[in-house]
Amino acid sequence: MSATIEIVEVSPRDGLQNEHVILPTEAKLELIRQVADAGARRIEAVSFARADLVPAMADAEDVMAGVDRTRGISYAGLVLNRRGLDRAIAAAVDEINVVVCASDTFNRRNQNASTEESLAAALDVVTGARAHGIFATVTIATAFGCPFEGEVPLERVLDLAVRAAEGGAQEVCLADTIGVGVPTQVRALTDGFRARSAAPLRFHFHNTRNTGIANALAAIDLGVTTLDASAGGIGGCPFAPNATGNIATEDLLYAIERMGMSSGWNLATLLPTADFLGAQLGHPVPAMVSKAGVFPNS
Amino acid sequence: MSATIEIVEVSPRDGLQNEHVILPTEAKLELIRQVADAGARRIEAVSFARADLVPAMADAEDVMAGVDRTRGISYAGLVLNRRGLDRAIAAAVDEINVVVCASDTFNRRNQNASTEESLAAALDVVTGARAHGIFATVTIATAFGCPFEGEVPLERVLDLAVRAAEGGAQEVCLADTIGVGVPTQVRALTDGFRARSAAPLRFHFHNTRNTGIANALAAIDLGVTTLDASAGGIGGCPFAPNATGNIATEDLLYAIERMGMSSGWNLATLLPTADFLGAQLGHPVPAMVSKAGVFPNS
Repeated sequence: MSATIEIVEVSPRDGLQNEHVILPTEAKLELIRQVADAGARRIEAVSFARADLVPAMADAEDVMAGVDRTRGISYAGLVLNRRGLDRAIAAAVDEINVVVCASDTFNRRNQNASTEESLAAALDVVTGARAHGIFATVTIATAFGCPFEGEVPLERVLDLAVRAAEGGAQEVCLADTIGVGVPTQVRALTDGFRARSAAPLRFHFHNTRNTGIANALAAIDLGVTTLDASAGGIGGCPFAPNATGNIATEDLLYAIERMGMSSGWNLATLLPTADFLGAQLGHPVPAMVSKAGVFPNS
Repeated sequence: MSATIEIVEVSPRDGLQNEHVILPTEAKLELIRQVADAGARRIEAVSFARADLVPAMADAEDVMAGVDRTRGISYAGLVLNRRGLDRAIAAAVDEINVVVCASDTFNRRNQNASTEESLAAALDVVTGARAHGIFATVTIATAFGCPFEGEVPLERVLDLAVRAAEGGAQEVCLADTIGVGVPTQVRALTDGFRARSAAPLRFHFHNTRNTGIANALAAIDLGVTTLDASAGGIGGCPFAPNATGNIATEDLLYAIERMGMSSGWNLATLLPTADFLGAQLGHPVPAMVSKAGVFPNS
């Protein structure tokens, strides 16, 4: 394989959002600088959720005001509604990510609305973002399973994904929010979506049950070239308290580079970020390559 | 995929051999009972290495004297030379595993002999074992890379593997001893071996750099049906001190069962073994599914 893989670095948002420690703005900016120095060109930097509901992301405007806009990096903000979009526009994000949970129960707990209500709101946000020249992604969360409902029917996920694309999303991201997915699901979702939509497809994997890298490589094998990952493997899900988080950017980089693919990142430059995050968060981070080292060494 | 995957449970030998804590014989027998109860039908139970060199395995005869022989389980012992084979025969193992390191430097440090010398010794052991009706596997270690030499040429690994099969090994196991492998290597090794030998192929993966499950699924995708795994993911390599160990049996079981394959194991029965091992060893074990839980829950 000689593909070039685009990694959307989600540590500043999805990574930090569910940590017990809330990082000061300057530490977030340092994280963003580090991943940018290592090669990140798309960074999910902030969330425009309500500060009282997601206090870890309350400084979204300050973070966006502090990032380096001279490097050609696309900074993304998570947006859930029109109010969030207004903030995103004011903060001049380059792209937005709107989340709709395929599981109705999960969506109600997460967004206090039904999946259908959230999809409608998401498409409204997408339309508004694009009117301002902001690139718009819709993420379908719990696409591989729900902690409350169990299996989420494939057809339900595909229906939402296709409707998101038809409704204006320039990219659809399928998220294994709780880390239960396996490569056969990646294939079924990819094939099913491709049969119905030409929109760019992106995946968001968690390594909760150790299947994250296998899922990422399965997606790549199917021709998907955009994947979320989080430096240090930080993140996780509040509904899976003992679980590890997003797939680690360094672990994904190791695998794809050793398989002969390119990413535009420099793995060696990224490795120290795991220690930075560990010190900031007060616990070791789950990434493995930062502990074990690259190979070969030279 | 509807294949049946055979897992060789290696926690009692490869798992425990490199731990700082040496388990008493009774605890090893309890571990063997637990994995047998969960479904293990091939268990690498002991090593017949010299007790002064591998003190953790000094009670090999006692372990073999204590295992349940009424359950149809094949118990394997690691053997490095004729002296070890004599002990294995006396202890009535069902199968032996002989290791030859593809990296000459690694083999000299590990076995104080050149790779060629160890291959000759291995084939002598294989002949002796088969004369006693003992099933004989040859494992080619450092087949995916060496911590001292770096890359190990594919042709060198294949040459050794084919000569092992031609020399009488009834199964050849290719081992990623230090956990550097990626699925493209699994494919190259599998295709290369299959082109030259009809002998059964088995893989031994470590999850040191988070590629272990991806490698296992890649092997399965290529038609390999026998894989090593270790309950709790215990084990590792003394040359990679910070690294996690063998792929965890529970993590592998989760992936393959959710992909629709069968193993003959009961994952739920195995899950408590991670806590048992953590208590015995004095540290949490790397397996993830035992922390995160199975899915769906019911």
